[in-house]
Amino acid sequence: MTSPAIKAERLQQRLETFADIGATPAGGVNRQALSPEDREARRLLAELAKARRFGVFQDAMANLFIRRSGRDDRLPPLLIGSHLDSQPTGGRFDGALGTLSAFEVLEALEDAGAQTPSPIEVVAWTNEEGSRFAPGVMGSMAFAGAADPAQWQSLAGSDGASFADELAATLAALPEAAMRPLGMPLSGYIELHIEQGPSLEKEGLAIGVVTGVQGTRWLKVTVTGEAGHAGTTPLPYRRDPMVAAVGMMHQLQASVMPSDADARLTVGRIATIPGSVNAIPKAVTFSLDIRHPSAGRLDAIVGDVQAICRAEGAKQGCSVEIATAFDMAPGVFAPEMIDTIEAAARRLSLPCKRMVSGAFHDALFLARVAPTAMIFVPCRNGISHNEAEYVEPASIRDGARLLLEATIAATTT
Amino acid sequence: MTSPAIKAERLQQRLETFADIGATPAGGVNRQALSPEDREARRLLAELAKARRFGVFQDAMANLFIRRSGRDDRLPPLLIGSHLDSQPTGGRFDGALGTLSAFEVLEALEDAGAQTPSPIEVVAWTNEEGSRFAPGVMGSMAFAGAADPAQWQSLAGSDGASFADELAATLAALPEAAMRPLGMPLSGYIELHIEQGPSLEKEGLAIGVVTGVQGTRWLKVTVTGEAGHAGTTPLPYRRDPMVAAVGMMHQLQASVMPSDADARLTVGRIATIPGSVNAIPKAVTFSLDIRHPSAGRLDAIVGDVQAICRAEGAKQGCSVEIATAFDMAPGVFAPEMIDTIEAAARRLSLPCKRMVSGAFHDALFLARVAPTAMIFVPCRNGISHNEAEYVEPASIRDGARLLLEATIAATTT
Repeated sequence: MTSPAIKAERLQQRLETFADIGATPAGGVNRQALSPEDREARRLLAELAKARRFGVFQDAMANLFIRRSGRDDRLPPLLIGSHLDSQPTGGRFDGALGTLSAFEVLEALEDAGAQTPSPIEVVAWTNEEGSRFAPGVMGSMAFAGAADPAQWQSLAGSDGASFADELAATLAALPEAAMRPLGMPLSGYIELHIEQGPSLEKEGLAIGVVTGVQGTRWLKVTVTGEAGHAGTTPLPYRRDPMVAAVGMMHQLQASVMPSDADARLTVGRIATIPGSVNAIPKAVTFSLDIRHPSAGRLDAIVGDVQAICRAEGAKQGCSVEIATAFDMAPGVFAPEMIDTIEAAARRLSLPCKRMVSGAFHDALFLARVAPTAMIFVPCRNGISHNEAEYVEPASIRDGARLLLEATIAATTT
Repeated sequence: MTSPAIKAERLQQRLETFADIGATPAGGVNRQALSPEDREARRLLAELAKARRFGVFQDAMANLFIRRSGRDDRLPPLLIGSHLDSQPTGGRFDGALGTLSAFEVLEALEDAGAQTPSPIEVVAWTNEEGSRFAPGVMGSMAFAGAADPAQWQSLAGSDGASFADELAATLAALPEAAMRPLGMPLSGYIELHIEQGPSLEKEGLAIGVVTGVQGTRWLKVTVTGEAGHAGTTPLPYRRDPMVAAVGMMHQLQASVMPSDADARLTVGRIATIPGSVNAIPKAVTFSLDIRHPSAGRLDAIVGDVQAICRAEGAKQGCSVEIATAFDMAPGVFAPEMIDTIEAAARRLSLPCKRMVSGAFHDALFLARVAPTAMIFVPCRNGISHNEAEYVEPASIRDGARLLLEATIAATTT
């Protein structure tokens, strides 16, 4: 028996093969959840698995599992993987990289004739992206018992398709996969993914050891003042909601992120009513996307936001309403799994740092039912959810090597 | 002969009669330029004129003139008036008040058998509002030779109507009005109008003696940065155009108006691209409406705007483009006509102040060809271009009395 090793050319070739399924003219991928393209990708993965005599399973959410037996098959498996669905104009690596790198790990173990103490399973979660059927991370959420899939029975997709019909068709398209119940005991979960941000590339690091997922709060701030003629209304008679909104945003932009490197605050959307060049608006609405890895700090920032918005509104004689449009608590990964991955990276001399994920992942829900952590690799310019998404071959190799090393370590400890 | 005096009840009644033409259910007026309702109002004014044996004239722009002879009819007339067209959901007083008050002045002179040295004419300018056919102040602009009406021959209205056809139909609807050439020598022009702003009411003043019209510059500022994921992009890697735009607006709002009581700066419109809650925008555009009665100060403010925008853009690594969407030089009224009106207000013990108009008026172009000034009366809450527009009967009376007094003074001096 040789020592297990990633075959980087095989993985690279396989990424290209999968990128052909749903390929877009601009070099990206349109392989939305439960679409014919998604089914084709799932079929190809199942066939590759059968060729290696791995077990193939699916559950009621069409989460797809590839199982390589361990020494004791009664032990709960270690799960590794990601998703195969994409955004409508998505990239080739978001999801596919983690899924195919996990499959490469199974193949590397098989090539080496390595026996692991417990089984290892590769998973491709259903509908991580949520662009065709909202919400995203459906498969992992249902697997972790965090949502009852019955609620999605009558859901319609962005293309008008029935979720129930498309799910049934997807399950039926893979009759050779044995059905299993939703959810099962796991010894752990490791997900490799592209960073979808610029930090690793800018800092010249090969690996991010992900310690959790930021909590997210979306607020919609509505500032109401008094409409007026831009020419005929002197300053003392103005109750201008735009002046109030600018005061709010200015204070928040100058304080929240500059004082806390872990905080994120973004104004992505803003509108005035009525929106005339020559009218003082009657009202202004703007969005705040606020993120922090600590639930307590997130609450504190939201408290600051409310105080600042009310004070700036009052200064201009404007009323302020703040509505919560979305609220997701931070996900905290398992220290032992984080340590395992970090130690593996050190053994492989891969420059790395611990970091928090700014984007959602299936791992967010797996962390509720098993010791979970993630591995990030850099993507060019931090670009993702975009046909221009790109990962250097060296990063693909580094990630897969680390996933193999961490998988072996996690099943042996 | 008695001393000429306004009959306030007659004027009030006449305002109500005209408000019935194009009346809206909400109590406003829809009497857009060259519409059947506009024609009906013009016909009524012409018939009232004929009943008093005043002369009725129109020119190629369908500007309507009502002439009361003076002692020497070879002298250039003093012109008084305003417009009869309205916004689509306009008020009862914008334009109509000035036109009907001017007609009341003619009737008061006639009632008293008063003879003026020169003729006095009432004018109703065509298409002041510009809401059906853009631009506004067409009639007065063409009268003053500031625009060639030929350019509007193929113009289409917001309702698809042909400007040329509607103009011809309007002229044809008043065959008894003698045609005269566009433009003529005038001894002066006085226009009474509602303030369309809150100053007079808030300061408890009966009259504004208008010394000019603010110059206006509309700028469109486009700030371009780098789109990014709201969750995965730390502060040091952001080139956020919204942060830059907020920095610009904050500085401008804190400096331009607070440091100069005559300046106006309004952000009425703003948009982000792509406008996703969870994305750092790629670009932000916002409008600036900047006004000042002094051309030099207006230029200086626009210079400051450009410097501030470039500096704030550079701070965030964003590029900035500033386009001029509209540029109207300030209008400066004639000192002798301003003095005449102010002295008349003092004789009538009407509390008044000198002020600059923030809105456009036909007087802006008349000022280029004749000694011109305006009289403002307060409107409730400064509301105009709105069906809720309202003027107190006392203000209507005060305005008409002053217009009569100033008219007599202007024709005698």
